[in-house]
Amino acid sequence: MNHDTHWTADPDELLRVGPGFRLSEQPTDGTPGFDGGKKEGRKALSHGADVLAGLQEKLFACGRLGESRSILLVLQAMDTAGKGGIVSHVIGAMNPGGVHYAGFGKPTPEELAHDFLWRVWREVPAAGQVAVFDRSHYEDVLIGRVRRLADPDEIERRYGAITAFENELTESGTAVIKVMLHLGKDQQKRRLASRLERLDKLWKFNPADVDERLLWDEYQDAYQIALERTNSVQAPWFVVPADHKWYARAAVQELLIRQLQRLQLEWPAPDYDVEEQKQRLAAS
Amino acid sequence: MNHDTHWTADPDELLRVGPGFRLSEQPTDGTPGFDGGKKEGRKALSHGADVLAGLQEKLFACGRLGESRSILLVLQAMDTAGKGGIVSHVIGAMNPGGVHYAGFGKPTPEELAHDFLWRVWREVPAAGQVAVFDRSHYEDVLIGRVRRLADPDEIERRYGAITAFENELTESGTAVIKVMLHLGKDQQKRRLASRLERLDKLWKFNPADVDERLLWDEYQDAYQIALERTNSVQAPWFVVPADHKWYARAAVQELLIRQLQRLQLEWPAPDYDVEEQKQRLAAS
Repeated sequence: MNHDTHWTADPDELLRVGPGFRLSEQPTDGTPGFDGGKKEGRKALSHGADVLAGLQEKLFACGRLGESRSILLVLQAMDTAGKGGIVSHVIGAMNPGGVHYAGFGKPTPEELAHDFLWRVWREVPAAGQVAVFDRSHYEDVLIGRVRRLADPDEIERRYGAITAFENELTESGTAVIKVMLHLGKDQQKRRLASRLERLDKLWKFNPADVDERLLWDEYQDAYQIALERTNSVQAPWFVVPADHKWYARAAVQELLIRQLQRLQLEWPAPDYDVEEQKQRLAAS
Repeated sequence: MNHDTHWTADPDELLRVGPGFRLSEQPTDGTPGFDGGKKEGRKALSHGADVLAGLQEKLFACGRLGESRSILLVLQAMDTAGKGGIVSHVIGAMNPGGVHYAGFGKPTPEELAHDFLWRVWREVPAAGQVAVFDRSHYEDVLIGRVRRLADPDEIERRYGAITAFENELTESGTAVIKVMLHLGKDQQKRRLASRLERLDKLWKFNPADVDERLLWDEYQDAYQIALERTNSVQAPWFVVPADHKWYARAAVQELLIRQLQRLQLEWPAPDYDVEEQKQRLAAS
Protein backbone atom coordinates (compact mmCIF):
# COMPACT_ATOMS: atom_id res chain seq x y z
CA MET A 1 0.00 0.00 0.00
CA ASN A 2 1.40 3.36 -0.93
CA HIS A 3 -1.51 5.43 0.29
CA ASP A 4 -2.24 6.54 3.79
CA THR A 5 -4.79 4.18 5.15
CA HIS A 6 -6.90 3.27 8.10
CA TRP A 7 -7.13 -0.32 6.97
CA THR A 8 -5.53 -2.59 9.56
CA ALA A 9 -6.29 -5.73 7.57
CA ASP A 10 -6.95 -6.45 3.92
CA PRO A 11 -10.73 -6.13 3.31
CA ASP A 12 -10.22 -8.47 0.39
CA GLU A 13 -9.48 -11.26 2.85
CA LEU A 14 -11.87 -10.18 5.58
CA LEU A 15 -14.93 -9.81 3.38
CA ARG A 16 -14.35 -12.56 0.84
CA VAL A 17 -16.82 -15.42 0.86
CA GLY A 18 -15.12 -18.69 1.76
CA PRO A 19 -16.03 -22.35 2.33
CA GLY A 20 -18.90 -22.86 4.76
CA PHE A 21 -19.96 -19.21 4.51
CA ARG A 22 -23.30 -18.46 6.17
CA LEU A 23 -24.89 -15.13 5.27
CA SER A 24 -27.20 -15.32 8.29
CA GLU A 25 -24.16 -15.28 10.60
CA GLN A 26 -22.64 -12.15 9.09
CA PRO A 27 -23.17 -8.92 11.04
CA THR A 28 -24.55 -6.01 9.03
CA ASP A 29 -23.35 -3.28 11.39
CA GLY A 30 -19.66 -4.09 11.63
CA THR A 31 -16.69 -2.20 10.23
CA PRO A 32 -14.18 -5.03 9.90
CA GLY A 33 -10.60 -4.09 9.22
CA PHE A 34 -11.16 -0.36 9.52
CA ASP A 35 -9.52 1.54 12.34
CA GLY A 36 -11.79 4.51 12.89
CA GLY A 37 -15.35 5.80 12.68
CA LYS A 38 -17.41 7.89 10.31
CA LYS A 39 -15.03 10.83 10.29
CA GLU A 40 -12.00 8.72 9.48
CA GLY A 41 -14.06 6.72 6.97
CA ARG A 42 -14.92 9.83 5.05
CA LYS A 43 -11.34 10.98 5.11
CA ALA A 44 -10.17 7.61 3.82
CA LEU A 45 -12.80 7.76 1.06
CA SER A 46 -11.71 11.23 0.02
CA HIS A 47 -8.05 10.25 -0.07
CA GLY A 48 -8.77 6.95 -1.76
CA ALA A 49 -10.67 8.75 -4.52
CA ASP A 50 -7.42 10.19 -5.86
CA VAL A 51 -5.62 6.86 -5.59
CA LEU A 52 -8.43 5.08 -7.42
CA ALA A 53 -8.63 7.74 -10.13
CA GLY A 54 -4.89 7.47 -10.72
CA LEU A 55 -4.99 3.69 -11.03
CA GLN A 56 -7.97 3.84 -13.35
CA GLU A 57 -6.22 6.30 -15.65
CA LYS A 58 -3.36 3.82 -15.97
CA LEU A 59 -5.78 0.98 -16.75
CA PHE A 60 -7.42 3.18 -19.38
CA ALA A 61 -4.05 4.10 -20.90
CA CYS A 62 -3.11 0.42 -21.14
CA GLY A 63 -6.41 -0.30 -22.86
CA ARG A 64 -5.76 2.44 -25.38
CA LEU A 65 -2.45 0.90 -26.32
CA GLY A 66 -3.76 -2.60 -26.88
CA GLU A 67 -3.83 -4.34 -23.51
CA SER A 68 -7.01 -6.27 -22.81
CA ARG A 69 -7.40 -5.84 -19.07
CA SER A 70 -10.55 -4.39 -17.56
CA ILE A 71 -12.57 -4.46 -14.35
CA LEU A 72 -16.15 -5.45 -13.69
CA LEU A 73 -17.73 -4.51 -10.37
CA VAL A 74 -21.05 -6.22 -9.70
CA LEU A 75 -23.24 -4.59 -7.06
CA GLN A 76 -26.12 -6.54 -5.54
CA ALA A 77 -28.20 -5.68 -2.50
CA MET A 78 -31.61 -5.30 -0.96
CA ASP A 79 -33.25 -1.91 -1.56
CA THR A 80 -31.68 1.08 0.24
CA ALA A 81 -28.49 -0.83 0.98
CA GLY A 82 -26.47 1.91 -0.69
CA LYS A 83 -25.70 0.87 -4.25
CA GLY A 84 -26.48 4.37 -5.45
CA GLY A 85 -24.12 5.90 -2.93
CA ILE A 86 -21.33 3.54 -4.00
CA VAL A 87 -21.87 4.52 -7.62
CA SER A 88 -21.85 8.21 -6.77
CA HIS A 89 -19.06 8.33 -4.18
CA VAL A 90 -16.74 5.51 -5.23
CA ILE A 91 -17.25 5.13 -8.96
CA GLY A 92 -17.86 8.86 -9.36
CA ALA A 93 -14.24 9.56 -8.47
CA MET A 94 -13.05 7.99 -11.71
CA ASN A 95 -13.02 9.62 -15.13
CA PRO A 96 -16.43 9.05 -16.77
CA GLY A 97 -14.61 8.50 -20.06
CA GLY A 98 -13.20 5.23 -18.74
CA VAL A 99 -16.20 4.04 -16.73
CA HIS A 100 -19.17 2.11 -18.04
CA TYR A 101 -22.24 2.16 -15.80
CA ALA A 102 -25.06 -0.29 -16.45
CA GLY A 103 -28.22 -0.45 -14.37
CA PHE A 104 -30.38 -3.54 -14.80
CA GLY A 105 -34.06 -3.07 -14.14
CA LYS A 106 -37.08 -5.21 -14.84
CA PRO A 107 -36.36 -6.93 -18.17
CA THR A 108 -38.06 -5.55 -21.27
CA PRO A 109 -40.06 -7.85 -23.55
CA GLU A 110 -37.11 -7.88 -25.95
CA GLU A 111 -34.75 -8.88 -23.16
CA LEU A 112 -37.14 -11.57 -21.98
CA ALA A 113 -37.21 -12.97 -25.50
CA HIS A 114 -33.48 -13.70 -25.17
CA ASP A 115 -31.33 -15.77 -22.82
CA PHE A 116 -30.93 -13.99 -19.47
CA LEU A 117 -27.25 -13.27 -20.22
CA TRP A 118 -28.01 -11.48 -23.49
CA ARG A 119 -28.54 -8.04 -21.99
CA VAL A 120 -25.59 -8.55 -19.66
CA TRP A 121 -23.08 -9.40 -22.38
CA ARG A 122 -23.81 -6.12 -24.09
CA GLU A 123 -22.63 -4.21 -21.03
CA VAL A 124 -19.36 -5.94 -20.16
CA PRO A 125 -16.31 -3.65 -20.05
CA ALA A 126 -14.15 -2.90 -23.07
CA ALA A 127 -10.36 -3.08 -22.68
CA GLY A 128 -9.21 -0.48 -20.16
CA GLN A 129 -12.69 0.19 -18.80
CA VAL A 130 -14.12 -0.15 -15.33
CA ALA A 131 -17.70 -1.36 -15.70
CA VAL A 132 -20.20 -1.23 -12.87
CA PHE A 133 -23.33 -3.32 -12.78
CA ASP A 134 -26.03 -1.78 -10.61
CA ARG A 135 -27.94 -5.01 -10.14
CA SER A 136 -26.95 -7.67 -12.64
CA HIS A 137 -27.42 -11.19 -13.97
CA TYR A 138 -27.82 -12.19 -10.32
CA GLU A 139 -31.33 -10.75 -10.33
CA ASP A 140 -32.22 -13.76 -12.45
CA VAL A 141 -31.44 -16.09 -9.54
CA LEU A 142 -32.62 -13.71 -6.80
CA ILE A 143 -35.95 -12.11 -7.66
CA GLY A 144 -36.12 -14.80 -10.34
CA ARG A 145 -36.04 -17.48 -7.66
CA VAL A 146 -38.10 -15.71 -4.99
CA ARG A 147 -40.83 -14.63 -7.39
CA ARG A 148 -40.65 -17.83 -9.46
CA LEU A 149 -40.15 -15.84 -12.66
CA ALA A 150 -38.76 -18.91 -14.42
CA ASP A 151 -39.13 -22.68 -14.11
CA PRO A 152 -37.16 -24.25 -11.23
CA ASP A 153 -35.04 -26.17 -13.75
CA GLU A 154 -34.14 -22.96 -15.52
CA ILE A 155 -33.22 -21.26 -12.24
CA GLU A 156 -31.00 -24.22 -11.37
CA ARG A 157 -29.36 -24.07 -14.79
CA ARG A 158 -28.47 -20.42 -14.36
CA TYR A 159 -25.95 -20.85 -11.54
CA GLY A 160 -23.73 -22.86 -13.84
CA ALA A 161 -24.35 -20.50 -16.73
CA ILE A 162 -23.29 -17.56 -14.56
CA THR A 163 -20.08 -19.31 -13.53
CA ALA A 164 -19.26 -20.11 -17.16
CA PHE A 165 -19.98 -16.52 -18.17
CA GLU A 166 -17.76 -15.11 -15.45
CA ASN A 167 -14.99 -17.58 -16.29
CA GLU A 168 -15.09 -16.43 -19.88
CA LEU A 169 -14.75 -12.81 -18.76
CA THR A 170 -11.84 -13.46 -16.43
CA GLU A 171 -10.02 -15.59 -18.99
CA SER A 172 -10.26 -12.80 -21.52
CA GLY A 173 -8.75 -10.24 -19.15
CA THR A 174 -11.59 -8.87 -17.02
CA ALA A 175 -11.13 -8.91 -13.26
CA VAL A 176 -14.54 -9.56 -11.73
CA ILE A 177 -15.41 -8.27 -8.26
CA LYS A 178 -18.85 -9.17 -6.92
CA VAL A 179 -20.15 -7.23 -3.95
CA MET A 180 -23.22 -7.90 -1.89
CA LEU A 181 -24.04 -4.96 0.34
CA HIS A 182 -25.35 -6.67 3.46
CA LEU A 183 -28.02 -4.56 5.16
CA GLY A 184 -29.93 -5.22 8.37
CA LYS A 185 -33.70 -5.56 8.12
CA ASP A 186 -34.32 -2.89 10.76
CA GLN A 187 -31.89 -0.57 9.08
CA GLN A 188 -33.80 -0.97 5.82
CA LYS A 189 -37.01 -0.03 7.58
CA ARG A 190 -35.42 3.17 8.89
CA ARG A 191 -34.05 4.08 5.48
CA LEU A 192 -37.32 3.44 3.66
CA ALA A 193 -39.16 5.44 6.32
CA SER A 194 -36.81 8.36 5.91
CA ARG A 195 -37.43 8.35 2.15
CA LEU A 196 -41.13 8.79 2.91
CA GLU A 197 -40.40 11.79 5.14
CA ARG A 198 -38.44 13.90 2.68
CA LEU A 199 -39.80 15.66 -0.38
CA ASP A 200 -36.44 15.21 -2.14
CA LYS A 201 -36.40 11.48 -1.44
CA LEU A 202 -39.97 10.47 -2.31
CA TRP A 203 -38.91 9.67 -5.88
CA LYS A 204 -36.52 7.04 -4.58
CA PHE A 205 -39.32 5.13 -2.88
CA ASN A 206 -41.29 2.52 -4.75
CA PRO A 207 -44.22 0.65 -3.23
CA ALA A 208 -42.65 -2.50 -4.68
CA ASP A 209 -39.79 -2.00 -2.20
CA VAL A 210 -42.20 -2.94 0.60
CA ASP A 211 -43.46 -5.93 -1.39
CA GLU A 212 -39.92 -7.25 -1.63
CA ARG A 213 -39.23 -6.42 2.01
CA LEU A 214 -42.10 -8.71 2.99
CA LEU A 215 -40.10 -11.50 1.38
CA TRP A 216 -36.91 -10.65 3.29
CA ASP A 217 -36.13 -14.17 4.48
CA GLU A 218 -36.73 -15.67 1.06
CA TYR A 219 -34.29 -13.14 -0.42
CA GLN A 220 -31.66 -13.92 2.20
CA ASP A 221 -32.00 -17.61 1.32
CA ALA A 222 -31.72 -16.85 -2.38
CA TYR A 223 -28.56 -14.80 -1.70
CA GLN A 224 -27.08 -17.62 0.37
CA ILE A 225 -27.62 -20.07 -2.48
CA ALA A 226 -26.29 -17.66 -5.11
CA LEU A 227 -23.18 -16.88 -3.03
CA GLU A 228 -22.47 -20.57 -2.46
CA ARG A 229 -22.97 -21.65 -6.03
CA THR A 230 -21.29 -18.81 -7.91
CA ASN A 231 -18.36 -17.98 -5.68
CA SER A 232 -15.05 -18.74 -7.37
CA VAL A 233 -11.39 -17.87 -7.07
CA GLN A 234 -11.55 -16.00 -10.37
CA ALA A 235 -14.79 -14.15 -9.63
CA PRO A 236 -15.10 -13.94 -5.86
CA TRP A 237 -17.99 -12.63 -3.83
CA PHE A 238 -17.47 -10.07 -1.08
CA VAL A 239 -20.13 -9.49 1.54
CA VAL A 240 -19.82 -5.93 2.80
CA PRO A 241 -21.62 -4.87 6.00
CA ALA A 242 -23.80 -1.98 4.87
CA ASP A 243 -25.53 -0.54 7.93
CA HIS A 244 -22.80 2.12 8.01
CA LYS A 245 -22.80 3.79 4.61
CA TRP A 246 -19.36 5.31 5.17
CA TYR A 247 -17.90 1.86 5.83
CA ALA A 248 -19.47 0.20 2.80
CA ARG A 249 -18.20 2.98 0.54
CA ALA A 250 -14.68 2.90 1.94
CA ALA A 251 -14.60 -0.90 1.78
CA VAL A 252 -15.74 -1.17 -1.84
CA GLN A 253 -13.29 1.56 -2.80
CA GLU A 254 -10.49 -0.34 -1.08
CA LEU A 255 -11.46 -3.59 -2.82
CA LEU A 256 -11.20 -1.80 -6.16
CA ILE A 257 -7.91 -0.15 -5.27
CA ARG A 258 -6.33 -3.44 -4.19
CA GLN A 259 -7.60 -5.21 -7.29
CA LEU A 260 -6.12 -2.52 -9.50
CA GLN A 261 -2.87 -2.63 -7.57
CA ARG A 262 -2.65 -6.38 -8.12
CA LEU A 263 -2.67 -5.74 -11.87
CA GLN A 264 0.70 -3.99 -11.40
CA LEU A 265 -0.12 -1.52 -14.13
CA GLU A 266 2.64 0.47 -15.80
CA TRP A 267 2.27 3.40 -18.14
CA PRO A 268 2.22 1.76 -21.56
CA ALA A 269 5.17 2.13 -23.90
CA PRO A 270 4.33 4.29 -26.92
CA ASP A 271 3.90 2.58 -30.27
CA TYR A 272 5.68 5.45 -32.03
CA ASP A 273 9.18 6.96 -32.00
CA VAL A 274 9.15 9.80 -29.48
CA GLU A 275 12.13 11.69 -30.89
CA GLU A 276 10.78 11.49 -34.42
CA GLN A 277 7.46 12.89 -33.29
CA LYS A 278 9.16 15.71 -31.39
CA GLN A 279 10.85 16.72 -34.64
CA ARG A 280 7.65 16.50 -36.65
CA LEU A 281 5.85 18.58 -34.06
CA ALA A 282 8.60 21.20 -33.92
CA ALA A 283 8.37 21.60 -37.69
CA SER A 284 4.57 21.92 -37.67
CA MET B 1 -28.40 32.38 -9.73
CA ASN B 2 -28.54 30.99 -6.23
CA HIS B 3 -24.92 30.01 -6.04
CA ASP B 4 -21.99 32.18 -5.22
CA THR B 5 -20.34 33.06 -8.47
CA HIS B 6 -17.57 34.91 -10.16
CA TRP B 7 -19.58 35.25 -13.33
CA THR B 8 -20.22 38.90 -14.07
CA ALA B 9 -22.14 38.15 -17.25
CA ASP B 10 -24.05 35.15 -18.51
CA PRO B 11 -21.61 32.92 -20.45
CA ASP B 12 -24.61 31.64 -22.33
CA GLU B 13 -24.92 35.03 -23.99
CA LEU B 14 -21.22 35.84 -24.22
CA LEU B 15 -20.16 32.59 -25.84
CA ARG B 16 -23.18 31.80 -27.98
CA VAL B 17 -22.64 31.88 -31.72
CA GLY B 18 -24.72 34.59 -33.36
CA PRO B 19 -25.31 36.07 -36.81
CA GLY B 20 -22.13 37.03 -38.63
CA PHE B 21 -19.97 34.99 -36.28
CA ARG B 22 -16.35 34.64 -37.40
CA LEU B 23 -14.33 31.94 -35.66
CA SER B 24 -11.08 33.51 -36.86
CA GLU B 25 -11.89 36.67 -34.91
CA GLN B 26 -12.47 34.89 -31.60
CA PRO B 27 -9.63 35.03 -29.09
CA THR B 28 -8.55 31.68 -27.66
CA ASP B 29 -6.90 33.08 -24.55
CA GLY B 30 -9.72 35.17 -23.11
CA THR B 31 -11.78 34.56 -20.00
CA PRO B 32 -14.97 36.43 -20.93
CA GLY B 33 -17.48 37.04 -18.18
CA PHE B 34 -15.32 35.63 -15.42
CA ASP B 35 -14.06 37.93 -12.70
CA GLY B 36 -10.88 36.26 -11.50
CA GLY B 37 -7.96 34.09 -12.47
CA LYS B 38 -6.95 30.46 -12.13
CA LYS B 39 -7.38 30.34 -8.38
CA GLU B 40 -10.89 31.77 -8.47
CA GLY B 41 -11.69 29.61 -11.48
CA ARG B 42 -10.84 26.46 -9.59
CA LYS B 43 -12.85 27.62 -6.62
CA ALA B 44 -15.84 28.33 -8.84
CA LEU B 45 -15.49 24.89 -10.43
CA SER B 46 -15.37 23.18 -7.06
CA HIS B 47 -18.42 25.04 -5.79
CA GLY B 48 -20.28 24.60 -9.07
CA ALA B 49 -19.72 20.83 -8.90
CA ASP B 50 -22.16 20.56 -6.00
CA VAL B 51 -24.69 22.83 -7.69
CA LEU B 52 -24.50 20.81 -10.89
CA ALA B 53 -24.76 17.48 -9.07
CA GLY B 54 -27.85 18.71 -7.23
CA LEU B 55 -29.57 19.86 -10.41
CA GLN B 56 -28.70 16.62 -12.17
CA GLU B 57 -30.20 14.53 -9.39
CA LYS B 58 -33.46 16.45 -9.82
CA LEU B 59 -33.41 15.86 -13.59
CA PHE B 60 -32.80 12.16 -12.95
CA ALA B 61 -35.63 12.00 -10.42
CA CYS B 62 -38.01 13.61 -12.93
CA GLY B 63 -36.95 11.07 -15.53
CA ARG B 64 -37.68 8.25 -13.14
CA LEU B 65 -41.20 9.47 -12.61
CA GLY B 66 -42.08 9.78 -16.27
CA GLU B 67 -40.87 13.19 -17.44
CA SER B 68 -39.06 13.15 -20.77
CA ARG B 69 -36.49 15.88 -20.29
CA SER B 70 -32.79 15.22 -20.75
CA ILE B 71 -29.56 17.02 -21.67
CA LEU B 72 -27.09 16.42 -24.45
CA LEU B 73 -23.70 18.10 -24.28
CA VAL B 74 -21.71 17.89 -27.50
CA LEU B 75 -17.96 18.49 -27.17
CA GLN B 76 -15.91 19.25 -30.26
CA ALA B 77 -12.36 20.54 -30.48
CA MET B 78 -8.92 20.21 -31.97
CA ASP B 79 -6.65 17.72 -30.16
CA THR B 80 -5.45 18.72 -26.67
CA ALA B 81 -8.11 21.42 -26.36
CA GLY B 82 -9.31 19.87 -23.11
CA LYS B 83 -12.31 17.66 -23.86
CA GLY B 84 -10.96 15.01 -21.52
CA GLY B 85 -10.54 17.49 -18.70
CA ILE B 86 -14.12 18.71 -19.15
CA VAL B 87 -15.38 15.14 -18.98
CA SER B 88 -13.33 14.43 -15.88
CA HIS B 89 -13.77 17.70 -13.97
CA VAL B 90 -17.21 18.91 -15.06
CA ILE B 91 -19.14 15.77 -15.98
CA GLY B 92 -17.34 13.76 -13.30
CA ALA B 93 -19.10 15.77 -10.60
CA MET B 94 -22.43 14.22 -11.50
CA ASN B 95 -23.69 10.79 -10.46
CA PRO B 96 -22.46 8.21 -13.01
CA GLY B 97 -25.85 6.50 -12.72
CA GLY B 98 -27.49 9.45 -14.48
CA VAL B 99 -24.74 10.27 -16.96
CA HIS B 100 -24.19 8.66 -20.34
CA TYR B 101 -20.75 9.18 -21.85
CA ALA B 102 -20.17 8.37 -25.51
CA GLY B 103 -16.84 8.79 -27.24
CA PHE B 104 -16.87 8.71 -31.04
CA GLY B 105 -13.71 7.48 -32.69
CA LYS B 106 -12.89 6.44 -36.21
CA PRO B 107 -16.02 4.68 -37.49
CA THR B 108 -15.99 0.88 -37.59
CA PRO B 109 -16.84 -0.96 -40.83
CA GLU B 110 -20.30 -1.66 -39.39
CA GLU B 111 -20.80 2.04 -38.61
CA LEU B 112 -19.59 3.01 -42.08
CA ALA B 113 -22.14 0.63 -43.57
CA HIS B 114 -24.90 2.77 -42.02
CA ASP B 115 -25.95 6.40 -42.29
CA PHE B 116 -23.59 8.63 -40.32
CA LEU B 117 -26.29 9.32 -37.72
CA TRP B 118 -26.84 5.63 -36.97
CA ARG B 119 -24.17 5.32 -34.30
CA VAL B 120 -25.13 8.68 -32.86
CA TRP B 121 -28.80 7.85 -32.38
CA ARG B 122 -27.87 4.88 -30.25
CA GLU B 123 -26.15 7.16 -27.75
CA VAL B 124 -28.70 9.93 -27.23
CA PRO B 125 -29.80 10.44 -23.62
CA ALA B 126 -32.72 8.61 -22.04
CA ALA B 127 -35.25 10.60 -20.03
CA GLY B 128 -33.54 12.15 -17.02
CA GLN B 129 -30.02 11.54 -18.32
CA VAL B 130 -27.19 13.91 -19.10
CA ALA B 131 -25.39 12.53 -22.15
CA VAL B 132 -21.97 13.75 -23.19
CA PHE B 133 -20.61 13.29 -26.69
CA ASP B 134 -16.82 13.33 -26.76
CA ARG B 135 -16.59 14.11 -30.45
CA SER B 136 -19.83 13.51 -32.27
CA HIS B 137 -21.75 13.57 -35.55
CA TYR B 138 -19.83 16.77 -36.27
CA GLU B 139 -16.75 14.73 -37.08
CA ASP B 140 -18.60 13.75 -40.24
CA VAL B 141 -18.51 17.37 -41.45
CA LEU B 142 -15.10 18.20 -39.93
CA ILE B 143 -12.56 15.46 -40.58
CA GLY B 144 -15.10 14.22 -43.12
CA ARG B 145 -14.77 17.48 -45.03
CA VAL B 146 -11.07 18.12 -44.52
CA ARG B 147 -10.04 14.57 -45.38
CA ARG B 148 -12.70 14.19 -48.08
CA LEU B 149 -14.03 11.00 -46.47
CA ALA B 150 -17.29 11.34 -48.34
CA ASP B 151 -18.47 12.88 -51.61
CA PRO B 152 -18.89 16.68 -51.52
CA ASP B 153 -22.65 16.26 -52.11
CA GLU B 154 -22.91 13.96 -49.12
CA ILE B 155 -20.97 16.39 -46.93
CA GLU B 156 -23.33 19.18 -48.02
CA ARG B 157 -26.36 17.01 -47.25
CA ARG B 158 -25.17 16.34 -43.72
CA TYR B 159 -25.54 19.90 -42.41
CA GLY B 160 -29.27 19.72 -43.00
CA ALA B 161 -29.45 16.18 -41.68
CA ILE B 162 -27.72 17.30 -38.48
CA THR B 163 -30.14 20.17 -38.01
CA ALA B 164 -33.12 17.86 -38.53
CA PHE B 165 -31.64 15.34 -36.08
CA GLU B 166 -31.07 17.98 -33.42
CA ASN B 167 -34.55 19.43 -33.96
CA GLU B 168 -36.03 16.00 -33.39
CA LEU B 169 -34.10 15.68 -30.13
CA THR B 170 -35.10 19.07 -28.82
CA GLU B 171 -38.74 18.57 -29.75
CA SER B 172 -38.83 15.33 -27.82
CA GLY B 173 -37.45 16.93 -24.67
CA THR B 174 -33.66 16.94 -24.96
CA ALA B 175 -31.86 20.23 -24.41
CA VAL B 176 -28.87 20.28 -26.75
CA ILE B 177 -25.74 22.27 -25.86
CA LYS B 178 -22.95 22.24 -28.42
CA VAL B 179 -19.52 23.37 -27.32
CA MET B 180 -16.47 24.02 -29.42
CA LEU B 181 -13.36 24.37 -27.29
CA HIS B 182 -11.41 27.01 -29.15
CA LEU B 183 -7.67 26.47 -28.78
CA GLY B 184 -4.79 28.52 -30.13
CA LYS B 185 -2.42 26.85 -32.56
CA ASP B 186 0.65 27.73 -30.48
CA GLN B 187 -1.02 26.49 -27.35
CA GLN B 188 -1.70 23.17 -29.05
CA LYS B 189 1.97 22.88 -29.95
CA ARG B 190 2.96 23.41 -26.32
CA ARG B 191 0.46 20.85 -25.08
CA LEU B 192 1.46 18.21 -27.63
CA ALA B 193 5.12 18.84 -26.80
CA SER B 194 4.47 18.37 -23.10
CA ARG B 195 2.78 15.03 -23.79
CA LEU B 196 5.99 13.92 -25.47
CA GLU B 197 8.03 14.91 -22.41
CA ARG B 198 6.15 12.93 -19.77
CA LEU B 199 6.14 9.15 -19.36
CA ASP B 200 2.58 9.31 -17.99
CA LYS B 201 1.34 11.33 -20.97
CA LEU B 202 2.94 9.49 -23.88
CA TRP B 203 -0.17 7.31 -24.26
CA LYS B 204 -2.24 10.41 -24.96
CA PHE B 205 -0.13 11.34 -27.94
CA ASN B 206 -0.90 9.95 -31.36
CA PRO B 207 1.24 10.69 -34.45
CA ALA B 208 -2.03 11.37 -36.25
CA ASP B 209 -2.44 14.43 -33.99
CA VAL B 210 0.44 16.05 -35.89
CA ASP B 211 -1.07 15.04 -39.23
CA GLU B 212 -4.27 16.85 -38.31
CA ARG B 213 -2.33 19.81 -36.92
CA LEU B 214 -0.73 20.27 -40.34
CA LEU B 215 -4.25 20.88 -41.65
CA TRP B 216 -5.05 23.47 -38.96
CA ASP B 217 -6.42 26.13 -41.30
CA GLU B 218 -8.59 23.63 -43.17
CA TYR B 219 -10.06 22.50 -39.86
CA GLN B 220 -10.76 26.06 -38.78
CA ASP B 221 -12.58 26.61 -42.06
CA ALA B 222 -14.57 23.41 -41.59
CA TYR B 223 -15.53 24.53 -38.07
CA GLN B 224 -16.60 27.95 -39.38
CA ILE B 225 -18.88 26.31 -41.93
CA ALA B 226 -20.30 23.81 -39.44
CA LEU B 227 -20.96 26.52 -36.86
CA GLU B 228 -22.72 28.71 -39.41
CA ARG B 229 -24.86 25.99 -40.90
CA THR B 230 -25.90 24.08 -37.80
CA ASN B 231 -26.34 26.83 -35.27
CA SER B 232 -29.95 27.15 -34.17
CA VAL B 233 -32.00 28.62 -31.35
CA GLN B 234 -32.95 25.12 -30.19
CA ALA B 235 -29.47 23.64 -30.44
CA PRO B 236 -27.02 26.53 -30.13
CA TRP B 237 -23.27 26.46 -30.51
CA PHE B 238 -20.99 27.94 -27.88
CA VAL B 239 -17.38 28.74 -28.67
CA VAL B 240 -15.36 28.56 -25.46
CA PRO B 241 -11.84 30.00 -25.34
CA ALA B 242 -9.70 27.05 -24.29
CA ASP B 243 -6.13 28.26 -23.83
CA HIS B 244 -6.89 28.46 -20.09
CA LYS B 245 -8.10 25.05 -19.01
CA TRP B 246 -9.56 26.39 -15.79
CA TYR B 247 -11.68 28.88 -17.73
CA ALA B 248 -13.00 26.35 -20.24
CA ARG B 249 -14.00 23.99 -17.45
CA ALA B 250 -15.72 26.66 -15.41
CA ALA B 251 -17.49 28.01 -18.49
CA VAL B 252 -18.85 24.66 -19.67
CA GLN B 253 -19.96 23.88 -16.13
CA GLU B 254 -21.76 27.20 -15.96
CA LEU B 255 -23.46 26.60 -19.32
CA LEU B 256 -24.76 23.29 -17.99
CA ILE B 257 -25.88 24.80 -14.71
CA ARG B 258 -27.78 27.61 -16.41
CA GLN B 259 -29.41 25.21 -18.86
CA LEU B 260 -30.56 22.99 -16.00
CA GLN B 261 -31.80 26.01 -14.08
CA ARG B 262 -33.87 27.09 -17.09
CA LEU B 263 -35.70 23.77 -16.90
CA GLN B 264 -37.06 24.91 -13.51
CA LEU B 265 -36.98 21.39 -12.20
CA GLU B 266 -39.01 20.43 -9.16
CA TRP B 267 -38.84 17.22 -7.17
CA PRO B 268 -41.44 15.04 -8.85
CA ALA B 269 -44.69 14.22 -7.08
CA PRO B 270 -44.86 10.57 -6.06
CA ASP B 271 -47.20 8.29 -7.99
CA TYR B 272 -48.24 6.52 -4.77
CA ASP B 273 -50.05 7.46 -1.57
CA VAL B 274 -47.38 8.42 0.96
CA GLU B 275 -49.48 7.82 4.08
CA GLU B 276 -50.62 4.43 2.84
CA GLN B 277 -47.02 3.40 2.21
CA LYS B 278 -45.95 4.59 5.66
CA GLN B 279 -48.54 2.27 7.16
CA ARG B 280 -47.52 -0.66 4.98
CA LEU B 281 -43.89 -0.09 5.89
CA ALA B 282 -44.64 0.18 9.61
CA ALA B 283 -46.45 -3.15 9.47
CA SER B 284 -43.64 -4.87 7.60
